[in-house]
Amino acid sequence: MRLSPAVRLSEYFMPTLRETPSEAEIVSHRLMLRAGMIRQESAGIYSWLPMGYRVLRKIEQVVRDEMDRIGCHEVLMPTIQSAELWRKSGRYDDYGKEMLRITDRHDRDMLFGPTNEEMITDIFAEHAKSYKDVPRMLYHIQWKFRDEVRPRFGVMRGREFLMKDAYSFDLTPEDGRISYNKQFVAYLRLYARMGLQAIPMAADTGPIGGDMSHEFIILAETGESQVWCNSDLLELDLLNADIDHRDPAQMSDVIGKVTSYYAATDEQHDEAKYQAEVPEDKRLSARGIEVGHIFFFGTKYSEPMNAKLQTKDGESVPVQMGSYGVGVSRLAGAIIEACHDDNGIVWPEAVAPFKVGLINLRVGDAACDAACEDLFAKLQAAGVDVMYDDRDERAGVKFADMDLIGLPWQIVVGPKGVAAGVVELKSRKTGVKEELSPEAALARLAG
Amino acid sequence: MRLSPAVRLSEYFMPTLRETPSEAEIVSHRLMLRAGMIRQESAGIYSWLPMGYRVLRKIEQVVRDEMDRIGCHEVLMPTIQSAELWRKSGRYDDYGKEMLRITDRHDRDMLFGPTNEEMITDIFAEHAKSYKDVPRMLYHIQWKFRDEVRPRFGVMRGREFLMKDAYSFDLTPEDGRISYNKQFVAYLRLYARMGLQAIPMAADTGPIGGDMSHEFIILAETGESQVWCNSDLLELDLLNADIDHRDPAQMSDVIGKVTSYYAATDEQHDEAKYQAEVPEDKRLSARGIEVGHIFFFGTKYSEPMNAKLQTKDGESVPVQMGSYGVGVSRLAGAIIEACHDDNGIVWPEAVAPFKVGLINLRVGDAACDAACEDLFAKLQAAGVDVMYDDRDERAGVKFADMDLIGLPWQIVVGPKGVAAGVVELKSRKTGVKEELSPEAALARLAG
Repeated sequence: MRLSPAVRLSEYFMPTLRETPSEAEIVSHRLMLRAGMIRQESAGIYSWLPMGYRVLRKIEQVVRDEMDRIGCHEVLMPTIQSAELWRKSGRYDDYGKEMLRITDRHDRDMLFGPTNEEMITDIFAEHAKSYKDVPRMLYHIQWKFRDEVRPRFGVMRGREFLMKDAYSFDLTPEDGRISYNKQFVAYLRLYARMGLQAIPMAADTGPIGGDMSHEFIILAETGESQVWCNSDLLELDLLNADIDHRDPAQMSDVIGKVTSYYAATDEQHDEAKYQAEVPEDKRLSARGIEVGHIFFFGTKYSEPMNAKLQTKDGESVPVQMGSYGVGVSRLAGAIIEACHDDNGIVWPEAVAPFKVGLINLRVGDAACDAACEDLFAKLQAAGVDVMYDDRDERAGVKFADMDLIGLPWQIVVGPKGVAAGVVELKSRKTGVKEELSPEAALARLAG
Repeated sequence: MRLSPAVRLSEYFMPTLRETPSEAEIVSHRLMLRAGMIRQESAGIYSWLPMGYRVLRKIEQVVRDEMDRIGCHEVLMPTIQSAELWRKSGRYDDYGKEMLRITDRHDRDMLFGPTNEEMITDIFAEHAKSYKDVPRMLYHIQWKFRDEVRPRFGVMRGREFLMKDAYSFDLTPEDGRISYNKQFVAYLRLYARMGLQAIPMAADTGPIGGDMSHEFIILAETGESQVWCNSDLLELDLLNADIDHRDPAQMSDVIGKVTSYYAATDEQHDEAKYQAEVPEDKRLSARGIEVGHIFFFGTKYSEPMNAKLQTKDGESVPVQMGSYGVGVSRLAGAIIEACHDDNGIVWPEAVAPFKVGLINLRVGDAACDAACEDLFAKLQAAGVDVMYDDRDERAGVKFADMDLIGLPWQIVVGPKGVAAGVVELKSRKTGVKEELSPEAALARLAG
């Protein structure tokens, strides 16, 4: 992903708000509106303004990297699907009013896809015929629509929302577990890269049974459900575990370790087990936000849709499948729920819209302007995402806006500092400020 | 954009077809189906399989780069819009059956956006209030829906299709022309980067009048309309003109030069003028495909939607707007119409799904396998997109598939060559083959 690496705020479109919008119930929604990231178009339907869209694309890119890493290939299925396909699986009638049903000009029943199991099964089955064509994993990142009765919490529970859905195809349930484990490991990494500690929690597998369904939950006060877990889970460093997805035994070990700790959502919580397994000082009960769900469903769709593979012995068997979702647009809100303070958003670096905000305290002052232009050019040359606040505004407005939008680093350039050959470098997260030469600031940020 | 740089065909999903699908009327549609790039899901609605999706994203990235270069900022508007907004502009009733109309669970009238002038005007007007807030340009790349009576020609005229739409906002018509010219110049570059010679042709401006509407047309036998132009237009090298978008005079000069040549679609063609202006040996009449359209429409939407700006003198005036479209998914087909031969697609390098195809002629032979693995690893390390055909298939199948999918370069590794320390490097476009050492091949491709 190449995003435009640098913008001047005087030429940008970032409509920040001073007041807190009254319609927003939770902090992420308030901050996204105040930072000019999104705009509501209809109930539960949002436009992503330049700052917000940058975050969305950075989240997408982390997800994409981790899917690519495990050999999952990207496709794109359309938003509009035919009802016919859903009649095959039997879900057209089962799915209630959440499905947005549409009639086209030729009176054909269509729908805005709420999910894609039917279509991907159909695509795979048309072309894959034998054991030689598996294992395979495909994913796509696409806008979906679920017509929630009462959309709320901004992008956290919208009607039109962006999901990554991956699907695995295997010959046997044992191979299916290997694919499931690859995704599990990718999920551990992808949340960690975004600066989140997502905890995998066993989820309901429905009539299929087994242990291959997990929700990934991050802790936040505004979470939609109550969760219980062993606090040791928050200390695991999975980003640096360097797990080889081509080594099933290694994956099993890691997953075995992670899932050995108690962790449950309210649907699955067993208080007696929790008390027995978790030492008192490690018991953690908190609110959680679901940011992903992985699920092995075997032949649930392949049987009704007749998706079969020929084995080496010439037998015909239904393909074993799993699906693996990440709420991409929801994550933009969820990350803010987990990463903010009283002054605004505190972006983790991997998903920050820009790494650095450059503040010119006296636009029009020749020395300040020159120092800023020089830093701006050099940061760009070093490949650093930078937003330059070159607006003719009071210092207080600039500081407040910069804290609100939450870029990880701020460089403040003022007339006194320039005269003394220094700028101020501030970490948004720690608040620590440091005076140093422009060259030293550059060296720190380009690293 | 980082795409997974390397894949092994044995693990990929590229369902090529031997036979020509009977439903495809034009060559790009046939080749996209045969190369396993797309799959039809409903009339005029396609899934993009891994190879096709890579092309789509590469086209997107070229468009994005050129928008970013001229200071146009990316946003994303949703696919589903409220009818209310379209009633404001008066287009809800004017737009016919091509608009996909939807009723949500609360019986509100919604629609799948066929275009976005209303919404972007509304977004801009909410936040931009004065002369200080212009000039601005915003764009988005989003799926749109137009319910064509008879969708055909594959992705060239689908119902669900991907467009880049940019919009400019200015205080005066004169400033509007500068924005228009920035887009014009960006369009010249972006098509050139994709290996296309797109010819700007004056288009109908409707009741607004003036000269600020151009279609960008590429020549191809299967084009939908007849065009007439001066053949000198095909020789202009605009990619290397290095035009500064901050220099209005320079932009005017370039555009003046380009538009000084006769070029017209059948709607605008004037045979007498053509004969008078174009020397006989430069007269070119051919079929053309529209791949972009730019249009300055002044206050057409800002007036009914009450989008106003305050001037320096305190006067309130409607904002001057233009819109600038590129058919992103259509381009995947259009490029193939312009770039193919009897054996398949011939991708221009900027939009090729992979730069190099590596063919192992004898999978299982230790020396061939080792030579291929070594090249595969080194190409990846050099940042070269590579697809490795490691399938256990006959050489004939591999050659035919590789020509069909049209990667710019092929490296062929066979037992004889490996024994002699050479591989074969083939240019898909020229067909020229060359024997050279693996190191020399690498050096050529990594450049």
